[in-house]
Amino acid sequence: MTSQIGITMGDPSGVGPEIIVATLAQMSHAEKASTIVVGNINILRRANEVLGLNLRFDCSGAFRSDHINVDHVSSSEEDMVQDGQISKAGGEAAYRYIVRAVDLAIENKIKVIVTAPINKEALHLAGHKFDGHTELLAHLTGAKESFMLLSGGKLSVIHVTTHMSLLNAVVKPSKKRIVSTIKVAAEHFRQLGIKHPRIAVAGLNPHCGEGGIFGNEEIEKVSPAISEAAQSGLNVVGPISGDTVFYRALKGEFDVVVAHYHDQGHIPTKLVSFEETVNVSLGLPILRTSVDHGTAFDIAWQGKAKNKNLKAAIQYARKIDKGD
Amino acid sequence: MTSQIGITMGDPSGVGPEIIVATLAQMSHAEKASTIVVGNINILRRANEVLGLNLRFDCSGAFRSDHINVDHVSSSEEDMVQDGQISKAGGEAAYRYIVRAVDLAIENKIKVIVTAPINKEALHLAGHKFDGHTELLAHLTGAKESFMLLSGGKLSVIHVTTHMSLLNAVVKPSKKRIVSTIKVAAEHFRQLGIKHPRIAVAGLNPHCGEGGIFGNEEIEKVSPAISEAAQSGLNVVGPISGDTVFYRALKGEFDVVVAHYHDQGHIPTKLVSFEETVNVSLGLPILRTSVDHGTAFDIAWQGKAKNKNLKAAIQYARKIDKGD
Repeated sequence: MTSQIGITMGDPSGVGPEIIVATLAQMSHAEKASTIVVGNINILRRANEVLGLNLRFDCSGAFRSDHINVDHVSSSEEDMVQDGQISKAGGEAAYRYIVRAVDLAIENKIKVIVTAPINKEALHLAGHKFDGHTELLAHLTGAKESFMLLSGGKLSVIHVTTHMSLLNAVVKPSKKRIVSTIKVAAEHFRQLGIKHPRIAVAGLNPHCGEGGIFGNEEIEKVSPAISEAAQSGLNVVGPISGDTVFYRALKGEFDVVVAHYHDQGHIPTKLVSFEETVNVSLGLPILRTSVDHGTAFDIAWQGKAKNKNLKAAIQYARKIDKGD
Repeated sequence: MTSQIGITMGDPSGVGPEIIVATLAQMSHAEKASTIVVGNINILRRANEVLGLNLRFDCSGAFRSDHINVDHVSSSEEDMVQDGQISKAGGEAAYRYIVRAVDLAIENKIKVIVTAPINKEALHLAGHKFDGHTELLAHLTGAKESFMLLSGGKLSVIHVTTHMSLLNAVVKPSKKRIVSTIKVAAEHFRQLGIKHPRIAVAGLNPHCGEGGIFGNEEIEKVSPAISEAAQSGLNVVGPISGDTVFYRALKGEFDVVVAHYHDQGHIPTKLVSFEETVNVSLGLPILRTSVDHGTAFDIAWQGKAKNKNLKAAIQYARKIDKGD
């Protein structure tokens, strides 16, 4: 049996190792046999001890159903990093797990990467100047653009923009980028088994600009992009005012909402499902889901971290895996 | 007993008259005796018939507990307007009810105005070029600025800006406006009986701008405004990223959140409490609450309109009334 899901261990000083072993401890044998952790086996063993679990680890590549399968990335981090501390060693280790996971994905040895949290500052200390996973994954795979989808159970939102100022999020996106976002959303939900995904595009301005009184972006970019996507055969409507579109999606009217900027998409999904919102990278040549929380250094290695979010990210990864 | 709450009837062609009589039919005698409808008694009588209610109306000014008290605004609208149609007559009538209610409030004959929906286009047809209630009320009372608070049960949000493009909402507000918004929020919640209201200010940019990487507004305006308000003795924190602050407020950590633009405040409140979100105008010399829906011409005068939202607006008005 091939392993389908590869979980990167994240920054060893953070909550990654704990939430990974806690989650694997709750998996069935079949699930274990289709899961591999890309990280450091010694650190995982220590997390197993800290949590008082009784897991056995294997890095033979045999994909055993009664062990935690580890693709062991050897480095010196187990001696260098300190619990809950930002460090160059932690950043470097986290970086190597991701590089290795991308290699495994490109070689088709894993189908979906699930990422545990990394710390941007630690990554930068190690000389890897990326804003986060998405930028790093785009770089490693040579992808020209990527899209962030947040899925919080009943509500899924894909973003036209994410990590840029609100001013840039208003000014920069082209009609083309909006069309691409709609198309990527459609493709993803088809992959999840929905033949004709129902897509709604939010307005950018209040009341969708009210015919230009409160901004022209709907007239100039958003509506033309929706028309173009609809003409290509997609089931897409909008723009629909931000204050109703998420409510309507939550009630089941749409499979996914296209949001224009970070907060427009993050506010509703996190409000609806704070602990189980999954972050999905789309538009890359590899598939990746992620927890939507950070390294939580303040509670790391104390057995306090909750693994609900990682479980949701893995569950979503299995859904993609089956859908494909 | 003086009447404390004055309900304006809104556009006679819309759902206002129906939802008003439906709500009054559910009131206790004491509540009826402290409520007056500012509108047209003949139209209210017709709504009573359409809904099959058994209400009696009185416009003697006696404030009876077994009647619906009406401050009858005479005009020709009962002959001119058609159910569910935009018209100059409807806009003019709606305008006159508001003017009359403001007079009553200024004369201290009513303490809070509760407004039923009006139609902007009808208002414009009648020659009154205002964007909505808030602008009209500011004009009638000579107020220089006003603030929109949305209250959806457990979540209350006050807006730095509302009806302007998202671009302007980023660029235009001054530090002073943000300080004023915090202060007005504090004053309002003190009026509601909370001695030291817990106020959180949202970030404007994603992750509050991450130290300037995703925008400078937090550094230049938002944080200095929070400091100034805190130094004046207010219990205010922030900026807190939009994707967590509303969740934390909903969980009970804050009494009110300061949002920077329309959708940032409207998305979470409407998602949490779509049917019962109340719109409260602050910063005016009069107090006003409102339904947060429109005239709903498509279902008007068919006995279909729900009055949940109006009930919530009246309930909020009574809360202000008691708190003062």
